[in-house]
Amino acid sequence: MTTAHSPLVQAFDLLAEARAAIETPALVVDLDRMDAAIERMAGLMRERGVALRPHAKTHKSLEVGHRQLDAGAVGLTVGTLGEAEVFAAGGARDLFIAYPLLPVGAKANRLRALAAGDVALSIGIDSVAGARAIAAALGADAGRVRILVEVDSGGRRTGVAPSGAGRLAAEAAELDLGVVGVFTHGGHGYADPAAGAGAADDEVSALAEAADALLLAGVEPVVISAGSTPTAVGSARGVVTEERPGTYVFGDRLQVGLGSIAADAVAAMVAATVVSVVAGERRFVLDAGAKILSKDVAPYVAGHGAVPELGGAVVSRVYDYHGVVELPDDTGAAMPAVGDVVLVVPNHICPVVNLVDTFQVVQGGRIVDEWAVDARGRNG
Amino acid sequence: MTTAHSPLVQAFDLLAEARAAIETPALVVDLDRMDAAIERMAGLMRERGVALRPHAKTHKSLEVGHRQLDAGAVGLTVGTLGEAEVFAAGGARDLFIAYPLLPVGAKANRLRALAAGDVALSIGIDSVAGARAIAAALGADAGRVRILVEVDSGGRRTGVAPSGAGRLAAEAAELDLGVVGVFTHGGHGYADPAAGAGAADDEVSALAEAADALLLAGVEPVVISAGSTPTAVGSARGVVTEERPGTYVFGDRLQVGLGSIAADAVAAMVAATVVSVVAGERRFVLDAGAKILSKDVAPYVAGHGAVPELGGAVVSRVYDYHGVVELPDDTGAAMPAVGDVVLVVPNHICPVVNLVDTFQVVQGGRIVDEWAVDARGRNG
Repeated sequence: MTTAHSPLVQAFDLLAEARAAIETPALVVDLDRMDAAIERMAGLMRERGVALRPHAKTHKSLEVGHRQLDAGAVGLTVGTLGEAEVFAAGGARDLFIAYPLLPVGAKANRLRALAAGDVALSIGIDSVAGARAIAAALGADAGRVRILVEVDSGGRRTGVAPSGAGRLAAEAAELDLGVVGVFTHGGHGYADPAAGAGAADDEVSALAEAADALLLAGVEPVVISAGSTPTAVGSARGVVTEERPGTYVFGDRLQVGLGSIAADAVAAMVAATVVSVVAGERRFVLDAGAKILSKDVAPYVAGHGAVPELGGAVVSRVYDYHGVVELPDDTGAAMPAVGDVVLVVPNHICPVVNLVDTFQVVQGGRIVDEWAVDARGRNG
Repeated sequence: MTTAHSPLVQAFDLLAEARAAIETPALVVDLDRMDAAIERMAGLMRERGVALRPHAKTHKSLEVGHRQLDAGAVGLTVGTLGEAEVFAAGGARDLFIAYPLLPVGAKANRLRALAAGDVALSIGIDSVAGARAIAAALGADAGRVRILVEVDSGGRRTGVAPSGAGRLAAEAAELDLGVVGVFTHGGHGYADPAAGAGAADDEVSALAEAADALLLAGVEPVVISAGSTPTAVGSARGVVTEERPGTYVFGDRLQVGLGSIAADAVAAMVAATVVSVVAGERRFVLDAGAKILSKDVAPYVAGHGAVPELGGAVVSRVYDYHGVVELPDDTGAAMPAVGDVVLVVPNHICPVVNLVDTFQVVQGGRIVDEWAVDARGRNG
């Protein structure tokens, strides 16, 4: 509950009449902050001459995706075939499924239909079995998709060892798949605020080694793609041709805690109503629980969310529909009353978006729009 | 990763053709296990002469709710106004919103419309402000709803102190609200396997004190309602007239870990595909991550889920669309291959249900039906 463990995010404006109009709990997006984040990342990548392909799993929203594309993104990244279908149907013309897709059964038919449409499609592989499934699903259309070999840069999740990328690329090429490059995700940059720089370096060295391995195997690595907000916002990285940050579009407590975005830049918060206060205690309960805040935690932030306007008070416990806030004495903040509507900064915004049907969009503290979470729940 | 921390749940049958037909990740319900769980709890409550009012937030499904009602439940419990609306529209005739509802603005209109319909409605309060909001929302219809005063039995969440229940009941009665009793949720019974019995006793003593307080205030406590699976399945509890368990209908790793349900009774699991294996390591990756397994953890279970058919191997890390499984050497299980479909037992089933649109229903290992998660995402 110390300041060091609770980055003091600054809330955006939400006027009293907007608070009264919102049916809580609700996810609220500050349009100006979001647009500024989109432009800031686009500008940084323009400056570096690097292609920007934002990960759309963060927002799952056609409206937000089109704003990213309008600002200069070359295309969007998605995590599932279902997300790709939604964004393709919504007009995206260039999509990368950055996942070792395994299109069998009904998914094979879905992939074939998607690839036959009006979208440039890239897909990740990290095994021959995956490459075979993609080739089998696409049949004569195999040449219509671009294949990227995933390499593990230290996240110990998916991806082959960088030295093995050439062999897998060659095996995929033998299946008539068009291998165009390599990609990685340095997810270990989320471990703590000091980890980002190392993970960024790890991404670069893994990608460089993998790109060399492709060349040795006779496959030209045109796309060399790295991806996460903490590693993208660091210094420029020579070998990388494409960055795939996602969370930067909204930000959250983890990103502020990691130093990846500024404390006054978080663009999405949960509006919640105080439904219970305990007489004589500095504890109250919000109608925002785990079914909207989710349960992501990290060692460098306290609890499950924070309330900036109450001195950064921390949501210390969440249940399905309850968020319990403990108001430390040293915040100086007065206890709220039952019925007060406050803004809560989530720890990790991606799962929060997936728990609502719509964004309430505010500008200058007023509700100006409502956007759908178009790809909500498209898990497969 | 020891057995003590990983309850060895037994999977239900899922035949090879069903595995091939399911688009993973998907939530699969074993019909026979679920029906047995419904009947077991109904029988236990019949035996005790206690009313059963299952919490529908666990399943959010009209089909499951009607099966509970058909087995003898007096009505359903819900956590939000939105859940109440869905179940009322789906034919439920008796609903209890076990939450300190604060119906203002649009929610006041929604509550008025719901109360005007063909449903017996009960609502929780834990403050005069909440009681006033309900009375104001209902106006002349205030007498149509039954009010229960929530008391804190040790969960330190919502609810007044038991000794304060009489005063709040009297204040609500002055607002022309019909107070019919008291309720509590001994959520602290989830702390560890030894906590359930104490929490069950705490519920009883808090409710007894609160019921006496109502009597002293001139309000007859007709309904004395306790609620959670771990506290409901213990020994009979004299003063309690109604039990509100929820999770029992499916079970999960936490309930098995707590000893509330048997290891061979878990009725809902996530079907997932192995999308990545690491050569030379005992680690593989499933397409079931945090966006279907959620991130509930507990000190008495390891990781984020388990794979019974692989010796109880634990999902040690989850990302949005990745679940990383470490297969300990001592399980004796062979590494799966890319493409294999396995069943994963979630830690906590309630958030998992809220992350999917449908249940795949299996019986004898075959897919026999698909049910909607009708109240998915009805957070407010």
